[in-house]
Amino acid sequence: MLKKCIAECLGTCVLVVFGCGTAAAIGCDVSGGYVATALAFGLVIVAMAYSIGNISGCHINPAVSLGMLISGKMSVSDFISYVISQCIGGVIGALILKILASSGSIDAGLGANGLYNGDIGISILVEVILTFVFVLAILGVTSRDGFSSVAGLVIGLTLTLVHLFGIYFTGTSVNPARSLGPALLAGGDALSSVWVFIVAPLIGAALAAFCYKFLDSDK
Amino acid sequence: MLKKCIAECLGTCVLVVFGCGTAAAIGCDVSGGYVATALAFGLVIVAMAYSIGNISGCHINPAVSLGMLISGKMSVSDFISYVISQCIGGVIGALILKILASSGSIDAGLGANGLYNGDIGISILVEVILTFVFVLAILGVTSRDGFSSVAGLVIGLTLTLVHLFGIYFTGTSVNPARSLGPALLAGGDALSSVWVFIVAPLIGAALAAFCYKFLDSDK
Amino acid sequence: MLKKCIAECLGTCVLVVFGCGTAAAIGCDVSGGYVATALAFGLVIVAMAYSIGNISGCHINPAVSLGMLISGKMSVSDFISYVISQCIGGVIGALILKILASSGSIDAGLGANGLYNGDIGISILVEVILTFVFVLAILGVTSRDGFSSVAGLVIGLTLTLVHLFGIYFTGTSVNPARSLGPALLAGGDALSSVWVFIVAPLIGAALAAFCYKFLDSDK
Amino acid sequence: MLKKCIAECLGTCVLVVFGCGTAAAIGCDVSGGYVATALAFGLVIVAMAYSIGNISGCHINPAVSLGMLISGKMSVSDFISYVISQCIGGVIGALILKILASSGSIDAGLGANGLYNGDIGISILVEVILTFVFVLAILGVTSRDGFSSVAGLVIGLTLTLVHLFGIYFTGTSVNPARSLGPALLAGGDALSSVWVFIVAPLIGAALAAFCYKFLDSDK
Repeated sequence: MLKKCIAECLGTCVLVVFGCGTAAAIGCDVSGGYVATALAFGLVIVAMAYSIGNISGCHINPAVSLGMLISGKMSVSDFISYVISQCIGGVIGALILKILASSGSIDAGLGANGLYNGDIGISILVEVILTFVFVLAILGVTSRDGFSSVAGLVIGLTLTLVHLFGIYFTGTSVNPARSLGPALLAGGDALSSVWVFIVAPLIGAALAAFCYKFLDSDK
Repeated sequence: MLKKCIAECLGTCVLVVFGCGTAAAIGCDVSGGYVATALAFGLVIVAMAYSIGNISGCHINPAVSLGMLISGKMSVSDFISYVISQCIGGVIGALILKILASSGSIDAGLGANGLYNGDIGISILVEVILTFVFVLAILGVTSRDGFSSVAGLVIGLTLTLVHLFGIYFTGTSVNPARSLGPALLAGGDALSSVWVFIVAPLIGAALAAFCYKFLDSDK
Repeated sequence: MLKKCIAECLGTCVLVVFGCGTAAAIGCDVSGGYVATALAFGLVIVAMAYSIGNISGCHINPAVSLGMLISGKMSVSDFISYVISQCIGGVIGALILKILASSGSIDAGLGANGLYNGDIGISILVEVILTFVFVLAILGVTSRDGFSSVAGLVIGLTLTLVHLFGIYFTGTSVNPARSLGPALLAGGDALSSVWVFIVAPLIGAALAAFCYKFLDSDK
Repeated sequence: MLKKCIAECLGTCVLVVFGCGTAAAIGCDVSGGYVATALAFGLVIVAMAYSIGNISGCHINPAVSLGMLISGKMSVSDFISYVISQCIGGVIGALILKILASSGSIDAGLGANGLYNGDIGISILVEVILTFVFVLAILGVTSRDGFSSVAGLVIGLTLTLVHLFGIYFTGTSVNPARSLGPALLAGGDALSSVWVFIVAPLIGAALAAFCYKFLDSDK
């Protein structure tokens, strides 16, 4: 279990460094950086899924772990261990970005998420939808053995998808650990609104788990 | 069958929210947004193919269902149920976009399709070609068991392809349900020309089905 | 054999319409259109490989057929039939683009290839290198059964690669049939230099076939 | 072994021509060229992995070979042969780019790596992180037979990932042979700082090998 926790911590750290880091380094303007950032987040999942996926399953996201818990694929104690490991990993990743930002290399916002136009309602709605689709795809593609070779590619490309739509609104969280780390170290508005990016992804993941359980039963 | 219909409705709704939504949020200019929109449409198919594909086959497109009907892979009654579910899903997706647009978040056009320079002939020609290629690829990749693990990736990337070429002309429909939802809620020109984006994709899909049946017979 | 020829003709036509057509519609500037065009060419191969690949093997390129001929995977008579079919397909594709261009929809150059700064030597060098890499990847990925499910993806992404590097120089041919069609209908400089884009890809493909035969023997 | 060395030399040459060449031809600005360059590097790996992968394993990178050596998948004598072949390939690739640059076709920098703002510390830190993630993914995806069909795609997309984040800082090396060739022929600052892009990737690869060995043991 220790190695699983180390793997989850490492994977989440890598996600924050490469995903949030790309956003903080080159920005997310539609005229440049938007597609690159969306690809970076997706391809981190590809890279991690095929390396630590062998070890921990590569959730690297408390919302994904919640979906697995509700789907009965994970125990409560494992869930807690995973989530703690992921949050620590997110903070370590943000610390690495902080070092890069302190030398003026990248944006001090560290790629943290933000409310869309200060609108909590729209932001929650968007994050719930994004996470719902992301977790639904994960539950679907991991439910058939025949998909195991491509599962990491599919999950990564789905994370790219939810960024292509969601960066415009909130920067796309769908992952409380990814939001927590940068918010803690960037502070300010990012920190005061981080609860949105913890609560909404968990709601979306829970909805996806119940929805998939319903659709997939007694076909 | 009910679960299949719910899956088709859900999938088409997600297609409209993420595909049309990305276009309505960030635009489709060649200098930015063009590739992102093309990728978003394709990656929705990837995400949905590996989640609801297990349940309904993930047509989420009346033109695809028509191709399957002509190819003898679907009954007429199932076809009707699928198409109705898809159209309902498209409208629900457009309603979600309408909520985002009403708060000024995204373009009020909701990513609806439009005629190229008001030219009905060119628009029909382009949509027939686009849908022909899209449905031909679907029929081909789903006809061999050895391709089942990558089929969703191939179909999604083919939808990205038809957007890379077609966004310039009509915004790319190739899917009556994807066009109907936004057109009904955006109204105006989008609604008055929506018949083009219902008729042309169905013609293209029928041509693809007949063409594939001819090419694939008695090899 | 007739169906194989029809499949090759159809596939090459689709390649010209979507590949050259995307270049002619949105352009290939680095600030926009460059990546889209490179992706379009690659994804046409993905779409066609999984549809007509079942029927003819989806060469849709005389240089690829030459590589297969030299590698002993194709008879001379089949090679001639394939090449004629591919060239006819390329012309039909260019005719479709001509219709779109005549109404002012797309650039009259029809995405034809051109010499780099009028320099025949550099243009030949670049095209030989591009085609060498493209055909080497095709020979490699089709030589192991375990790669059959992903071969179309790999070949398509390799075509995207040779466009990412080569569009800057010559627009990237690597395919005599893709160059011949647009050149015949666009005329002018495109037609007078089209021999470069027929000869150089064939040289590159032959080098790749001999190189792969050497490397793959008696391991 | 000779054929393996030729394959490694050829593959590294192709990597430099297409990867560094794309950067030198179209540049790496965020407003254009950035994503294209990141994709070009990744897709060279895809193309080469499925062609020479059959022959030499397609390391085409001394850091990857070091990771394999530490993981016990390669002998010391093979490691030395591979590294020499890779460095020769990198120089040949840079020579080809030099020919293109001498006619004014591409940037005289030949896509060589450079220090971020002249800061050796940040540059080493970034390269160690980039190579750690790249080699970790390689070790993970090649450790399970079930992933063999997609391994080349995963490794290529991971190289794209490390470029999406790293181009901004150092241009991304993660490969001493890829840095050495262009630096030798471009000279100047590229040559005086090339030691960073030899040492840091080797450190990152070694860390990845030890980390993976720890995580993957006695699960």
